Amino acid sequence: MNKKIILKKRPVGFPDKDTWELISENKPTLKDGEVLVKTHYVSLDPAMRGWLNDSKSYIAPVAINDVMRAGTIGEVIDAKGATKFKKGDVITGWGGVQQYFSTNGEGHFKVDISLAPMTKYIGALGMPGMTAYFGILEVAKIKENDVVLMSGAAGAVGSVAGQIAKIKNCKVIGIAGSEDKCKYVVDTLGFDACINYKEENIYAALKKLAPEGIDVYFDNVGGEILDAALSRLKMHARVVICGAISQYNSKEIQGPKNYLSLLVNRATMQGMVVFDYVARYKEAGLQMGTWMHQGKLISEEDVYDGIENFYDTFNRLFTGQKRGKLVLNVL
Amino acid sequence: MNKKIILKKRPVGFPDKDTWELISENKPTLKDGEVLVKTHYVSLDPAMRGWLNDSKSYIAPVAINDVMRAGTIGEVIDAKGATKFKKGDVITGWGGVQQYFSTNGEGHFKVDISLAPMTKYIGALGMPGMTAYFGILEVAKIKENDVVLMSGAAGAVGSVAGQIAKIKNCKVIGIAGSEDKCKYVVDTLGFDACINYKEENIYAALKKLAPEGIDVYFDNVGGEILDAALSRLKMHARVVICGAISQYNSKEIQGPKNYLSLLVNRATMQGMVVFDYVARYKEAGLQMGTWMHQGKLISEEDVYDGIENFYDTFNRLFTGQKRGKLVLNVL
Repeated sequence: MNKKIILKKRPVGFPDKDTWELISENKPTLKDGEVLVKTHYVSLDPAMRGWLNDSKSYIAPVAINDVMRAGTIGEVIDAKGATKFKKGDVITGWGGVQQYFSTNGEGHFKVDISLAPMTKYIGALGMPGMTAYFGILEVAKIKENDVVLMSGAAGAVGSVAGQIAKIKNCKVIGIAGSEDKCKYVVDTLGFDACINYKEENIYAALKKLAPEGIDVYFDNVGGEILDAALSRLKMHARVVICGAISQYNSKEIQGPKNYLSLLVNRATMQGMVVFDYVARYKEAGLQMGTWMHQGKLISEEDVYDGIENFYDTFNRLFTGQKRGKLVLNVL
Repeated sequence: MNKKIILKKRPVGFPDKDTWELISENKPTLKDGEVLVKTHYVSLDPAMRGWLNDSKSYIAPVAINDVMRAGTIGEVIDAKGATKFKKGDVITGWGGVQQYFSTNGEGHFKVDISLAPMTKYIGALGMPGMTAYFGILEVAKIKENDVVLMSGAAGAVGSVAGQIAKIKNCKVIGIAGSEDKCKYVVDTLGFDACINYKEENIYAALKKLAPEGIDVYFDNVGGEILDAALSRLKMHARVVICGAISQYNSKEIQGPKNYLSLLVNRATMQGMVVFDYVARYKEAGLQMGTWMHQGKLISEEDVYDGIENFYDTFNRLFTGQKRGKLVLNVL
């Protein structure tokens, strides 16, 4: 049988348990040219909250009664006819929150698990890592000695983007939601400093840690933290709008009231979606893999077991009860 | 005697009459190397409201008891020793809201009033015109066939920026605050359409006028209009933050709650201050003068008389009771 999570209704605000349903059905029957994939790990990402809304966005919303969209990594266990992948291949792509799926292989990529464990390919070597890489290098266009402020610093994207900024000789200040996370960000990831936004006044902390202001703010969270960052921009600063996790469950988005700092400081605020860089994922993966092997880039996955725990695990994205990349083992 | 407007206190919200005082004092006595200038026209600009606030900005606030800062054009009527300008020269610069001032000429420029009337040099050939020119060409980076949305379309900056976009073969939609202004924007300035935001629903009007979305939004106003524009961005759209007149008298700035449209559309929001382009004013002035002589660029100044009417005239910026460049004749 195949256990899968399907979308039952569109949530308003914080999704309740009835938003999804766990169902069990027969494993898919293969058509010619298709492979059957047994999913090992499902990637849980803040962006998934946006895919529940029935509004124009960078990707179509998940349809009601469809399997919940998610990035996955799994093993090809069967194949029929001439197929792109063969039995035993490990492939990553959009498998959704389910244990098995069939595909002709379009949009899926084979990975080499002798180079890195499976979970890395949906973490630092997957979508969050690609987001970090292209966001900090191509959108923020960091330069040596830039002062970089990183929200969600212990998260899947922020932890990688901040370390890349360190590799490029920037001064990097993180923002995270607990003392433990801040300690991890500084002691393990090597950021120069970290602000615990739940305990500290961000405005005061930023004034102390970046008295000269910031060149780059990489925003994963939105809300008050975005406003605090805007208040400390240097001339010609760049703000990357990568995400806004503090706002995804709000009925009304909080607009940045300090946006006129862009005018005063001739600064730029630019949005990004990682899918635009798909043609360059390989280049980025090679570079990041190299940094990992050199010990310059550390990534951590926080893995929870059981497809029946999807709801509680997904919520950890919003409660902050996780560190690094959030992963669900659906076996 | 020299009549002058001095700043008496820092307003909170809409400035009341006691914000300034009209005083009369002796004309300045010249030091060696200085000229005495009799000001003809004072430029009244939305940015002046910002200069009243005691906060970090792109320029220092006007000090209490100092003459109110303003761009001016006037005639040199006396000179002492070796001076940059000579009697009879007409010069433009930061003379402030007063009838006479002395200067060594630093930051002032001589203009040729046989080419254009005085008021043009504080309008389309002055700061507002330069703002329009560099904002639309260098910051928005307009290209042929771009759909350009222009707020404050009947104003000093918007009217010029929109016409430049027309010269560059863009589709230009204006937003203005009355039927009269909209008629002027379309019939006289040649915009493709104009939305009267006081009567029409901007969201609905934009959907109708730009069904394909907008490539460029040039923002002079902020507030609800900025949010409406953000809701209609095309992929890779550019938003120029030039001003926010709807917010200058607010105690709290309204942040753009649709800012995540920047993410969805991989769009850019960039602030500008015209002073950054001072080295290129001459190039811009030549180009704009040429367009004027060719009849491609129309500009209008709305001139009011009497320094004693400074307060009421300045308020027209915020009530919208003016068209084109607002000018005070201080004689």
